[in-house]
Amino acid sequence: MRAALLNIGTELLMGYTVNTNATYMASQLTEIGVGVYEQVSIGDNPNRLKETFKRLYEAYDVIITTGGLGPTQDDLTKETIADALDLSMHESPQVKEDLIAFFESYQVEMTDNNLRQAQFPRGSFILKNPHGTAPGCYLKRDDKHVFILPGPPREMIPMMEDHVIPRLAKLQDGLFKSVYITCVGIGESSAEDKILDLIMTQSNPTIATYAGDGHITFRVTANGGDKGEVEGLLEPVVDAIRDRLSDYVISLEGKKIHQVLADALMEKKWSLATAESCTGGKIAERLVSVSGVSSVYKAGFVTYSNEAKMKQLGVSDVSLSSVGAVSEEVAVEMLMGLKRETDAFVGISTTGIAGPTGGSPTKPVGLVYIGTRVGDDIRITRHEFKGNRERVRERSTISALNQCLRHMKEYKSITNA
Amino acid sequence: MRAALLNIGTELLMGYTVNTNATYMASQLTEIGVGVYEQVSIGDNPNRLKETFKRLYEAYDVIITTGGLGPTQDDLTKETIADALDLSMHESPQVKEDLIAFFESYQVEMTDNNLRQAQFPRGSFILKNPHGTAPGCYLKRDDKHVFILPGPPREMIPMMEDHVIPRLAKLQDGLFKSVYITCVGIGESSAEDKILDLIMTQSNPTIATYAGDGHITFRVTANGGDKGEVEGLLEPVVDAIRDRLSDYVISLEGKKIHQVLADALMEKKWSLATAESCTGGKIAERLVSVSGVSSVYKAGFVTYSNEAKMKQLGVSDVSLSSVGAVSEEVAVEMLMGLKRETDAFVGISTTGIAGPTGGSPTKPVGLVYIGTRVGDDIRITRHEFKGNRERVRERSTISALNQCLRHMKEYKSITNA
Repeated sequence: MRAALLNIGTELLMGYTVNTNATYMASQLTEIGVGVYEQVSIGDNPNRLKETFKRLYEAYDVIITTGGLGPTQDDLTKETIADALDLSMHESPQVKEDLIAFFESYQVEMTDNNLRQAQFPRGSFILKNPHGTAPGCYLKRDDKHVFILPGPPREMIPMMEDHVIPRLAKLQDGLFKSVYITCVGIGESSAEDKILDLIMTQSNPTIATYAGDGHITFRVTANGGDKGEVEGLLEPVVDAIRDRLSDYVISLEGKKIHQVLADALMEKKWSLATAESCTGGKIAERLVSVSGVSSVYKAGFVTYSNEAKMKQLGVSDVSLSSVGAVSEEVAVEMLMGLKRETDAFVGISTTGIAGPTGGSPTKPVGLVYIGTRVGDDIRITRHEFKGNRERVRERSTISALNQCLRHMKEYKSITNA
Repeated sequence: MRAALLNIGTELLMGYTVNTNATYMASQLTEIGVGVYEQVSIGDNPNRLKETFKRLYEAYDVIITTGGLGPTQDDLTKETIADALDLSMHESPQVKEDLIAFFESYQVEMTDNNLRQAQFPRGSFILKNPHGTAPGCYLKRDDKHVFILPGPPREMIPMMEDHVIPRLAKLQDGLFKSVYITCVGIGESSAEDKILDLIMTQSNPTIATYAGDGHITFRVTANGGDKGEVEGLLEPVVDAIRDRLSDYVISLEGKKIHQVLADALMEKKWSLATAESCTGGKIAERLVSVSGVSSVYKAGFVTYSNEAKMKQLGVSDVSLSSVGAVSEEVAVEMLMGLKRETDAFVGISTTGIAGPTGGSPTKPVGLVYIGTRVGDDIRITRHEFKGNRERVRERSTISALNQCLRHMKEYKSITNA
């Protein structure tokens, strides 16, 4: 099946809103084998909407619209599509009742405009909206499938999950299943190079690459008659990718490095403390984003100034004045300070020059030392990251989390030996 | 002038890449008064590209494409547009020379494919690309303006800034100038309500609202014959918005709250320390993102566990066991601990329940206490934020930074009195 996305809303054309809806929808459709061939954004203009809808309806099998379902005069999607398909509008008594109940529960007066949200093109199937007042709808005509969805992502996403994807998946031949293999510590092109033959010859399963936030994720999607067939198709390809990228693979469930590290700490019941200079709280912030991490994450120190490094972590003024804050020695002393202060079993320290100022010929912008401690074992790595302040700090954060994860894995294998 | 954006690349239709190009371009064009009426994404398919380009060329005055300028067989934008406009392709000797020099400098062998990047539709003006190997080009025909730009944002953005916007701005009548008024601590609809009459009657200047990351920004754009006229048009509207939203306005330059707070600290030479529980390093992380903040940001503590609150900040176990970690008392004790540990003049503390677990009838998920200290003056506020873990933490962060900024402003006015 060939699909087109039609995103409606003037805010998209004025650059106020990034169209994450289109990205989400395309990724979900691709996963069930529905190809997206065109995506169009237009403003709240009924003539242009009618014309564009008709063009897409002629050309594709599935048309999914977002936006223009609200109560204002600008919201004309349902009426315009009904007009384009020569359908009349009718009121849904159930939706009308729900709307009245909703406004009563919030003790807000309902205006007549709001009742427009209970009007639908005749013959359409109503898609409930538990997260807003505007339901969506589904129309099937001439072997075409039209889904009319609300614009806000928190309303649109559940409707895609609950209605659009299940309906379209049923129409597809067989089952689709995906495995997400996430790697850290390798660039996108180097990672792809290692599995290029698999990518070039892919047909079933297909392999797609997503890169961002320092992570590379390969989505491997297979299509088959039943679960056994699909898994049989997936297994050899997933195994091959995992083998070739073994040093870099952190998750087969698409998890990010901070989640994987937090899971590993919680599983082993190892406590962690962090001391951050150039990353300035980014490592702590990622870890605390994981619910339940309080059982293992003891404390974090943001020691951006030399004074804080001395006072909070006992870094020696001799080291700071002789080799400087951005040095292997200070990374080690920060780890030792963490151990004294918190007694955590695992420690992470970062110290570096994020820029744009502060660099020198011997210590350029982007120079970062990352320290990890597991038990009494200490590791320090030296990096020269490229890019602006934000990028240096981000890459330092991902590298530190990854170094800690690897260090923990290898520590285990030493102590078990 | 009416513009259309055509973004080319299969990655956009598979949900791998968020189309931030379209958002950026739309926002830049709107600012110089060029309206974007349609945005289309299509894959690397020459037939569909030709058809789509022709349709947009018929309908609009300005067509800007991104993507498909690279050296691979998929990259066919220039050739396809030349075909659509019945133009032949010709080689630019200058671009060919630049390409050869580029590959020599990187000591990489240049394949013949790369020379396709030196081919342009006849009659086009070449747009240099200092950030990549594929130049863009500009075609003017039949009073239509066609810009063909590369896809990667780091290549496309400078080309928009250096070539597209200046060229189109010159064709516009008069000058355009924008002022960005940023507010924090108020919702989008409440903020709009306060200036609804200005928004409803806008024509010159126009008022646009951007909301996100806890900030609301109003862009006020005026169009006039010269600088004096433009500024004369802007001033009364900017003043009116500033007056009505005075309590919430943090910047007239579109700055975010962490930048404004860091600037205020640096200007006053007041030192700051932070103690974070539920925000878990987010406040520190934002502050450290500002270059130069090390002169005022003394230290940060991420005391997510009770143990860390006691050990690092001297919070009493009596408070923790009687009123609990999420309490006014603990927010105060965290501030006092910061003062003892760092002697910073200003302090921020946060303690709350980010969820999804840990809530109770008396202390629901979303309950957050925010403390700020300026000199000896302490303020504690109690919040019940709605939303998931990430949203509660984000709103807590913005509110804490904003409370600190206001507290500093009001402290100044007390001490100056």
